[in-house]
Amino acid sequence: MMRPGRKNATRGFIVPIGGAENRVQNPVILRRFVKVCGGARAHIAVIPTASSLDDIGDRYESVFSGLGAGRITILPFKSRADCESPKYLEVLDRVDGVFMTGGDQVRLAEMLIDTSAAQRLCGRNMHGMHIAGTSAGASAMSSAMIASGTSGATPRAGMVDLAMGLGLVSRFVIDQHFSQRDRLGRLLTAVASIPFGAGIGLDEDTAAFIGPDDTLEVVGSGSVTIIDGSNLRNSPADLTRHGEPVGLTGVRLHILTEGNLYNLGNHTLLHSGLAAKSHGTVGSNAAALT
Amino acid sequence: MMRPGRKNATRGFIVPIGGAENRVQNPVILRRFVKVCGGARAHIAVIPTASSLDDIGDRYESVFSGLGAGRITILPFKSRADCESPKYLEVLDRVDGVFMTGGDQVRLAEMLIDTSAAQRLCGRNMHGMHIAGTSAGASAMSSAMIASGTSGATPRAGMVDLAMGLGLVSRFVIDQHFSQRDRLGRLLTAVASIPFGAGIGLDEDTAAFIGPDDTLEVVGSGSVTIIDGSNLRNSPADLTRHGEPVGLTGVRLHILTEGNLYNLGNHTLLHSGLAAKSHGTVGSNAAALT
Repeated sequence: MMRPGRKNATRGFIVPIGGAENRVQNPVILRRFVKVCGGARAHIAVIPTASSLDDIGDRYESVFSGLGAGRITILPFKSRADCESPKYLEVLDRVDGVFMTGGDQVRLAEMLIDTSAAQRLCGRNMHGMHIAGTSAGASAMSSAMIASGTSGATPRAGMVDLAMGLGLVSRFVIDQHFSQRDRLGRLLTAVASIPFGAGIGLDEDTAAFIGPDDTLEVVGSGSVTIIDGSNLRNSPADLTRHGEPVGLTGVRLHILTEGNLYNLGNHTLLHSGLAAKSHGTVGSNAAALT
Repeated sequence: MMRPGRKNATRGFIVPIGGAENRVQNPVILRRFVKVCGGARAHIAVIPTASSLDDIGDRYESVFSGLGAGRITILPFKSRADCESPKYLEVLDRVDGVFMTGGDQVRLAEMLIDTSAAQRLCGRNMHGMHIAGTSAGASAMSSAMIASGTSGATPRAGMVDLAMGLGLVSRFVIDQHFSQRDRLGRLLTAVASIPFGAGIGLDEDTAAFIGPDDTLEVVGSGSVTIIDGSNLRNSPADLTRHGEPVGLTGVRLHILTEGNLYNLGNHTLLHSGLAAKSHGTVGSNAAALT
């Protein structure tokens, strides 16, 4: 586990969570995050800024405390001035991990972007601080953030609005409540708009633990959908009218479940219970339909 | 255009349609089918067997007549004995094209499979007779037919029931009302169960005109989703509990719109308005997230 201040800086874990993670009966994701941060030695900061609920920070403080985290500090950023406050920034300089709650990712991003707090988040993560975010807190991690969109499996022109996120992750667009809210189409549409972009769609109660080596491990009860757009071709946006399907080819799609390991750098599956369908070679062109 | 009786037999077109095709204002799909069959010279048989509506055959007779087809014959197979009736089989020996209506694909398949009528359909199609089917009539074309299933974008164990179809197309599972009824998950689940399988998901008012050379052309207002499972790996079925997500990797996904041409034999896009996202080379592993 990486600690800040090491000479050879190693990035901390980045842990987007698809929302609605189990906090009581079987909190595998949050327990794992506490462990990654150092368990009883861990100091975790909670950023409740995305949420409109006044007590969301206290609730997570209680959960993390119950999971054995050594110390929890709430950072109640309610203005951009708060994001420059030395007392908060000093916390960010010290903590082992940061947790961003759900709520509204636009609110979270607009409050933090280009502030000293956001710079600390990215800078300290580059040097070993771990950062998790659920729902809106997951969406806000990427550079190109899904601000809003419509549901449906088919990508359609205009179905997603992108905005600037915190930039912990670039080239990967993150979406949450993924299968529950039928968001494949909007994630495909977002990926198609980003050169060599890729997408990570997280089901509820499901997390991607992305390690320093860009290996993603799935934790939780749902699945993680990876959209590898590195060979994607799509129809020119100016030829597609609003609401019409966006033609695209060459997308590689992976649906990963708990325990699967996937390298986001070269888009390869490292380990899983996945079995190859090995039934000889693919038929010739002429035999394709017969 | 291929005609029956040629010495060098060439397969006729196979035209699955996603249901709810426009029949009145802008019947591009049905007009194209009439044209493929020979226009004013075309003799088209309508098989209304999937439907529980008594007048569905008459309705299509009227539509095809209005589109200029030379002659239309309804083949009202209501029993397996009907499917052995010489007067009906003689029609199948003569027609240029057959159209199968929507309704219930299980009803259609159970009535026809292993009858002389079904043998005629496949045999004559191999020698140039064209065959189209909408909704249930499209589903029934494949060997492994989706009999029923649940909606959702994520593949889940047990979400699809397969049954035997007419076998005009093998290795390709066909699904319809695709984005309208959110059927990506069930098609992925079906494809994952078939060695080197592939899937064709048809939106409403959208058809795949599959030519003798296995080139698929999209016609209509929606999109055609191709799932190329030739490199698919999936989680062992015995490790996945009913209703849980099926892990799978290596799926290639294509969403095609009108005018796109795609070769089903070697899974390549032949022509389209699709533009490559050409923005330099893909970043290195180390730079993947930064």
